[in-house]
Amino acid sequence: MPPHTVRTIGIVTRPRPADVPGIVLPLQAWLAERGVKSLCDSETAKTLGNPAAGLSREQLAAQSDMILVLGGDGTLLSAAREAASRCIPILPINLGSLGFLTSFTLEELYPALEDTLAGRLTASERTMLLATLCRGDSVVDEQSVLNDVVINKSALARMIELRLSIDGSFVCRYRSDGLIVATPTGSTAYSLSAGGPIVHPAVESFIITPICPHTLSDRPLVVRDSCLVELCVLGDAESIYLTLDGQKGVPMESGDRVRITRSSGCLKLIQPPRKSYYEILRSKLKWGDV
Amino acid sequence: MPPHTVRTIGIVTRPRPADVPGIVLPLQAWLAERGVKSLCDSETAKTLGNPAAGLSREQLAAQSDMILVLGGDGTLLSAAREAASRCIPILPINLGSLGFLTSFTLEELYPALEDTLAGRLTASERTMLLATLCRGDSVVDEQSVLNDVVINKSALARMIELRLSIDGSFVCRYRSDGLIVATPTGSTAYSLSAGGPIVHPAVESFIITPICPHTLSDRPLVVRDSCLVELCVLGDAESIYLTLDGQKGVPMESGDRVRITRSSGCLKLIQPPRKSYYEILRSKLKWGDV
Amino acid sequence: MPPHTVRTIGIVTRPRPADVPGIVLPLQAWLAERGVKSLCDSETAKTLGNPAAGLSREQLAAQSDMILVLGGDGTLLSAAREAASRCIPILPINLGSLGFLTSFTLEELYPALEDTLAGRLTASERTMLLATLCRGDSVVDEQSVLNDVVINKSALARMIELRLSIDGSFVCRYRSDGLIVATPTGSTAYSLSAGGPIVHPAVESFIITPICPHTLSDRPLVVRDSCLVELCVLGDAESIYLTLDGQKGVPMESGDRVRITRSSGCLKLIQPPRKSYYEILRSKLKWGDV
Amino acid sequence: MPPHTVRTIGIVTRPRPADVPGIVLPLQAWLAERGVKSLCDSETAKTLGNPAAGLSREQLAAQSDMILVLGGDGTLLSAAREAASRCIPILPINLGSLGFLTSFTLEELYPALEDTLAGRLTASERTMLLATLCRGDSVVDEQSVLNDVVINKSALARMIELRLSIDGSFVCRYRSDGLIVATPTGSTAYSLSAGGPIVHPAVESFIITPICPHTLSDRPLVVRDSCLVELCVLGDAESIYLTLDGQKGVPMESGDRVRITRSSGCLKLIQPPRKSYYEILRSKLKWGDV
Repeated sequence: MPPHTVRTIGIVTRPRPADVPGIVLPLQAWLAERGVKSLCDSETAKTLGNPAAGLSREQLAAQSDMILVLGGDGTLLSAAREAASRCIPILPINLGSLGFLTSFTLEELYPALEDTLAGRLTASERTMLLATLCRGDSVVDEQSVLNDVVINKSALARMIELRLSIDGSFVCRYRSDGLIVATPTGSTAYSLSAGGPIVHPAVESFIITPICPHTLSDRPLVVRDSCLVELCVLGDAESIYLTLDGQKGVPMESGDRVRITRSSGCLKLIQPPRKSYYEILRSKLKWGDV
Repeated sequence: MPPHTVRTIGIVTRPRPADVPGIVLPLQAWLAERGVKSLCDSETAKTLGNPAAGLSREQLAAQSDMILVLGGDGTLLSAAREAASRCIPILPINLGSLGFLTSFTLEELYPALEDTLAGRLTASERTMLLATLCRGDSVVDEQSVLNDVVINKSALARMIELRLSIDGSFVCRYRSDGLIVATPTGSTAYSLSAGGPIVHPAVESFIITPICPHTLSDRPLVVRDSCLVELCVLGDAESIYLTLDGQKGVPMESGDRVRITRSSGCLKLIQPPRKSYYEILRSKLKWGDV
Repeated sequence: MPPHTVRTIGIVTRPRPADVPGIVLPLQAWLAERGVKSLCDSETAKTLGNPAAGLSREQLAAQSDMILVLGGDGTLLSAAREAASRCIPILPINLGSLGFLTSFTLEELYPALEDTLAGRLTASERTMLLATLCRGDSVVDEQSVLNDVVINKSALARMIELRLSIDGSFVCRYRSDGLIVATPTGSTAYSLSAGGPIVHPAVESFIITPICPHTLSDRPLVVRDSCLVELCVLGDAESIYLTLDGQKGVPMESGDRVRITRSSGCLKLIQPPRKSYYEILRSKLKWGDV
Repeated sequence: MPPHTVRTIGIVTRPRPADVPGIVLPLQAWLAERGVKSLCDSETAKTLGNPAAGLSREQLAAQSDMILVLGGDGTLLSAAREAASRCIPILPINLGSLGFLTSFTLEELYPALEDTLAGRLTASERTMLLATLCRGDSVVDEQSVLNDVVINKSALARMIELRLSIDGSFVCRYRSDGLIVATPTGSTAYSLSAGGPIVHPAVESFIITPICPHTLSDRPLVVRDSCLVELCVLGDAESIYLTLDGQKGVPMESGDRVRITRSSGCLKLIQPPRKSYYEILRSKLKWGDV
């Protein structure tokens, strides 16, 4: 779908009511003037005082040609799954401090919309991964994520023991506070804090980064995203959780397996053409002020 | 107190009943033959089938000239507080794999006891720190610890924000998964996994190591142990815990402060004279097999 | 070329004369019995007392269907360039301790040869990179490398300042002891010592790792190997060297640029089928003995 | 000696002639008005066009009650040795970007001098270490250093192998690009780039940090500064250099030993009272802009 055929835009906002009406109401009028229909998700509709007009994220994605996210990286992460599964692009507008993903500012909202509607902005594709939590023979949970799959322990638990296999071959056992499997997009999020490398979105890979490993020789590992990455919880598994894009915590049990593959869908992300990936990196990581 | 005046030995064992009777019963007989009285803590007494003979840790330390720990580093950590406050030495015998602290093996039990009773083994002193949790004007908790004070978040929480002050001066704010303040003894425990340096027990210092810091320039910091280290929980403090020597998790609230100073007592630890600190390091960290 | 059509094998040995004749002479006889011609490089021929029979590496690669390397990873690195440019495979036999690349042992020499001649062993492909050193408008040096391109300073120089561009876009300036650009194969060599991640050979990427960066936020960066990576030496450039696969040191001047792209040739490396990449990792990095 | 008895000030400047006369000539007049004699080192005297008035650093320290350093951390490092051996304080004025050690700005020159002459600024003491290079039975070189002793290899050499002993006990062997032994003052210099911790000047310690270690489990080690640290060069020692405070490179041979102890003298460093150690850290490391 070329960007200029956008007839309906779904609006998703972060849950901070105060700013929202002042931004969304004029935006909807502006879109209507240009013959573009706008829809809102439930949260946004509630904030606007018209809860009946709200759609679920699934409905919103099904009925829109594009999603406009007003918020931060967290809001975008939660909208990414539905947008990716429907193959519709996201235009992210940052309401706070610059995000890795939400790199348009509020001032750029209307110029960016004009450019997008006129087909002058195109979307870059970001790989997502599909995480499946298996217990015995059954699938407990399955979800696409844009940033990362995290297995970690509660604050009070002692240590996690995990077995990593790739394409069915044993790789190693980790004794650590946990483990992150990130996409390149997620390499600048939690994985970076845990000591992982920065991986450009075009590198077809998963990044496997242990969190506080007990074995000093454990190092981040980058593997091809065509691999099947499997993590199995060993030993006593008290207070271990699976977290997907930082937004969902599922308690895990001993013997549970998480299977990770490249997701069939990918996120189409519209970004400012004049800000390169490296420019955002420099700005976020405070590089270059040497 | 010179080591040769040991008349009463308190026995503390780790909670793995199977091995205990076969070790402790002959040990008690051996001690009795030499005119040394032995006492047991409650857990050990229960395991031996004589719960009435068990003493609390406090009573045990009050009535003994020395504590014999049969277990691993965890068992020793839990016994260290009472021993240190009473200034009596600990003789640690490892029942599992070599520990940093429990470096006598079970085979060395009787030779080590003979040497200790004859005054041929002396104890090295290990600094402990005193952690005080303050909420408003009241002290919520206070405890001496041998290894470390850890503030960290639950598996599902997003991030912790802490303010570090030293001797009343602001040092920095941390945005991270948590923070560790370790003694030199604790520098080879959790702090090492989080990227901290190895600090010899004779260096009078605290080691302050952030856990997965969001700011890439955050680095471990080593300060003099005569300092007052203060950590204050900023922002929303949901699911943050204070853990002392890995054994106690106290929920923390926004505004809570942890004050850390050098403890007045220190642990007297008996260690094998022929195994140097560096030899244990090499063995535990698998150094030198280059 | 399927492996079973091997009619001529070129032999390259490391410069340690003592072992060589006892291995190579019976090997040549064994090959001759099977109708396979063998050739030697100059060093090997000299060691065998027949210098006139020696060929240059270029000639050897031109006249052989396969190169047999007897030595360590260093010997293989020096033979890789010619083999890759001719698209002929290398069978590496380790004469010392296990290498990342040379993972057949001397005991496995004849079985590996039999399997290779019979077409039962196939080669995996390893990306190489092409490094071009430009000064003003002229090309000073150009070479394919299997592991890494290293720019670093002499022991006495203070610091290097480099500008990194990717596909013509400015990425950042580094102030450091130097910088490594590695292939995935090289990610387990020098880059790992400097703090880089382990990258599986199938990930189409370059790994850019600073050496002792002065800016604490500098982190290893992984980019797609279809990129043009350009490094420019800034400021006073006294005592800066370009080293290619650890084997060649070219003095660099201020303003010099190193351009790095994926090499058109790649190394065909025969490896033991039963030892996976991860098994070699575990063994070399002493993983898993937790 | 209390600071208010300063009658003679020795002036040391960095070798950048242009700024110097405009600063030093008025300074000398200002001092003369207040009855304080000023002396210059050879470099400064040459810059002022009066080379005959220049003194060697030794003479300068012998005849002065205080040294005024105009330059950066490098200039201070080179003046520190003589000042420390004579027990006279240094007042450092930074001519460029803020240094860890030279934290007065040029604007603060006269206020700082007034405060110092009036006894309102006192000096903090910084430990120095004494490095002795021994070859066989003879001492090849010996020097006090404020920051660090560095053993490293030339750009083209492959690896260094060193044996570390502390107080005569073997600690470990390092295979690396080199090794740094730093004072706490030096912990924020090269050691930090190599991955070492930040150690407050009041912690009586040496920091031992390997440079690009081949063994992944090698970690920075902090030991008490009352120790004798000994490093011995093993194996082939081609192109290995000993560098003291970044200013002197002595070629080392196989078997050479460097013995490091706490120096008997220490540097008395005058610093701005309102800038704490941690404030300088935050500013230099760009902390806190989270």
